[in-house]
Amino acid sequence: MTEIEYPNFSFKISAQDPHSKGRCGVLETPHGSIETPNFIFCGTKAAIKGVSTAQAKEAGVDIILSNTYHLLIQPGPDIVAAHGGLHKMMNWDGPMLTDSGGFQIFSLGHGGVAQEIKGRNRTHNPRTLKKIDEEGAVFRSYLDGQIHRLTPELSIDIQRKLGADLILVLDECTPFHIDRDYTARSMERSHRWELRSLKEFEKSHNGRQALYGIVQGGVYPDLRKESATFVAQNPFFGQAIGGSLGGQKEQMREVVSYACNYLHPERPTHLLGIGGLADIWHGVTLGVDTFDCVHPTRLARHGGALVMPSLNAGKEHINLKNACYKKDYTPLDPECNNYSSKFTRAYIHYLFKANELLAGTLLTIHNMAFMMRLAKDIRNAIKTNRFQETQKLWLNY
Amino acid sequence: MTEIEYPNFSFKISAQDPHSKGRCGVLETPHGSIETPNFIFCGTKAAIKGVSTAQAKEAGVDIILSNTYHLLIQPGPDIVAAHGGLHKMMNWDGPMLTDSGGFQIFSLGHGGVAQEIKGRNRTHNPRTLKKIDEEGAVFRSYLDGQIHRLTPELSIDIQRKLGADLILVLDECTPFHIDRDYTARSMERSHRWELRSLKEFEKSHNGRQALYGIVQGGVYPDLRKESATFVAQNPFFGQAIGGSLGGQKEQMREVVSYACNYLHPERPTHLLGIGGLADIWHGVTLGVDTFDCVHPTRLARHGGALVMPSLNAGKEHINLKNACYKKDYTPLDPECNNYSSKFTRAYIHYLFKANELLAGTLLTIHNMAFMMRLAKDIRNAIKTNRFQETQKLWLNY
Repeated sequence: MTEIEYPNFSFKISAQDPHSKGRCGVLETPHGSIETPNFIFCGTKAAIKGVSTAQAKEAGVDIILSNTYHLLIQPGPDIVAAHGGLHKMMNWDGPMLTDSGGFQIFSLGHGGVAQEIKGRNRTHNPRTLKKIDEEGAVFRSYLDGQIHRLTPELSIDIQRKLGADLILVLDECTPFHIDRDYTARSMERSHRWELRSLKEFEKSHNGRQALYGIVQGGVYPDLRKESATFVAQNPFFGQAIGGSLGGQKEQMREVVSYACNYLHPERPTHLLGIGGLADIWHGVTLGVDTFDCVHPTRLARHGGALVMPSLNAGKEHINLKNACYKKDYTPLDPECNNYSSKFTRAYIHYLFKANELLAGTLLTIHNMAFMMRLAKDIRNAIKTNRFQETQKLWLNY
Repeated sequence: MTEIEYPNFSFKISAQDPHSKGRCGVLETPHGSIETPNFIFCGTKAAIKGVSTAQAKEAGVDIILSNTYHLLIQPGPDIVAAHGGLHKMMNWDGPMLTDSGGFQIFSLGHGGVAQEIKGRNRTHNPRTLKKIDEEGAVFRSYLDGQIHRLTPELSIDIQRKLGADLILVLDECTPFHIDRDYTARSMERSHRWELRSLKEFEKSHNGRQALYGIVQGGVYPDLRKESATFVAQNPFFGQAIGGSLGGQKEQMREVVSYACNYLHPERPTHLLGIGGLADIWHGVTLGVDTFDCVHPTRLARHGGALVMPSLNAGKEHINLKNACYKKDYTPLDPECNNYSSKFTRAYIHYLFKANELLAGTLLTIHNMAFMMRLAKDIRNAIKTNRFQETQKLWLNY
């Protein structure tokens, strides 16, 4: 395909770790620049659960995302567009990303592990996914049972209305354990969908949005190579690694590694749905620039505060609901300097026990600030050529 | 009883409405001064539901309260004391009030309206109140069934540990519809409790807290007179109007009026549990300086945004959950200039439909800012001798 210009976007690599593919960069969008590596927080339904965008900004958050699937179902893209897009509706003036809706259609659509393993008879799926064919996907709304259709073209049109800076192509997310045959055929269809997405994107391109391609191919090295090469050779602004990354950490890292080897070295690279601390450190060494995951914010609502594994016997979080925090009058995180660190562990423990909404809010703020501290430490480590020792400082115990 | 000094507290009347007992004042506490008339927001369990104390402050809130009853049950006064008191635990550096625990013991303790009407056999109450006698009250924790005792002395001791600036005596709150006989005997016992509270207060007085007496007497004018006179003649810093104020608005206003006629004219006067807009305007004309009620914050969590009755056909709130707001892209309240007014009614409507916590947070911020605007308008109206016309501007339609 011919080149596409992204006039209001750029990605500049500013520092390189000499011992890995780890790098720092600056990703410029119409809503400001972010430094990379960075973490994108989930505002799934055009709201971050339990915190305002002002609180997120105060916690240091640079970039957030919303999910096309959820917004398509409710309130619908036209209501978002009538606000002038997500930024205005949510009062968020920083960079934003929307996904294509693909991941949720398929992950919410699958009936269960048994169904997933078979990976066949998708049209008879008992859950919300009704049909998938060359044209796109048909699914049932979890809200009111209404039938929706999503095609590559429709996903682009909807994301135009939502107005995020970074937008994604529609892909099929094959579930974990699927056979090579289905994965290959699905990947090829996803590639055809990506080309249709590029076409649709180009048609309505206004310079305010930039398109990311998605690498599929499941856990199969040759398919990941093929898919990464496909994405790198087409005129996407950025590239995301999606689909099933395998069942275990080791496999996930290998799969990401296969993909990264064939991606475009100068384009921003996003790893979809990964948010563990050690995984992020490792992803960076493979050349990943941005990560997203519900983990930090969801964990917070269930009582989990992210902590440095090196100081906590290798654990990545502590659970403030545990009785041991009942009389722990130390600050939530003495290393942190954000709004939540003004409160004691005992108070937050109590708030969870008393079912006070503020409990989740305070931990969400903490976890956001914590992830931003991680991202900053990673960037500083690369810039000052101390990546490996800083990584040890975080992870080794 | 002999006088009690309140060295770090003062109440100065700064302006007087010539046509009513309405007045402006400055209430000074160890945690700063507030102008009156003012509204006290509920942070029942040492947290304002759905907003942080920082958000409350940003919304203009001057003073908040917590409930001794809830904090006695969970997390317990010793855990609050270990933090250095409520202010430090909650990160709230403004003035605070705690109630005595009386209201909740009795209101949560009564089995139902039928039981209330009878007003007898309290010791066999099927709910949480187990016993009430000269010594105090015995009740069962709603949390774990544990038996707690509350006496006037214990309530003062607990409130010492909680550390709020303004604290209240323990009283018995007789339910609505109770007979004159029981009300009179209960009032007399409450008066004996108030004297015991004063004694206990004096014993441990450290100048950091000021005690309010409470006027009881139900809906009976002669009892209200007797009780108000009792409170005015004893060395309380402030005076609160409590107990049953009757079944209807008219009766409530009459009852408050009886009490106000005999209260100390130079002491700050608080009306417990009243938060309607018209009721506040009326209460001010009777000489009430501060109000509290869960209404503005609870209403918010159920979708209600406070509005000016004059501009809304006499209604004091609109319900953002209503379908008519689905595509209403106007700001939540064009008259307001707080964080929540940055968002449209359509967005907040959607957030409620999508069960996003942010919905309640944004409306709570709005309702807090709205009540503070009301309080300011009332104060300005008194200061500039335009009380009646400003009241009409708010209420008439």
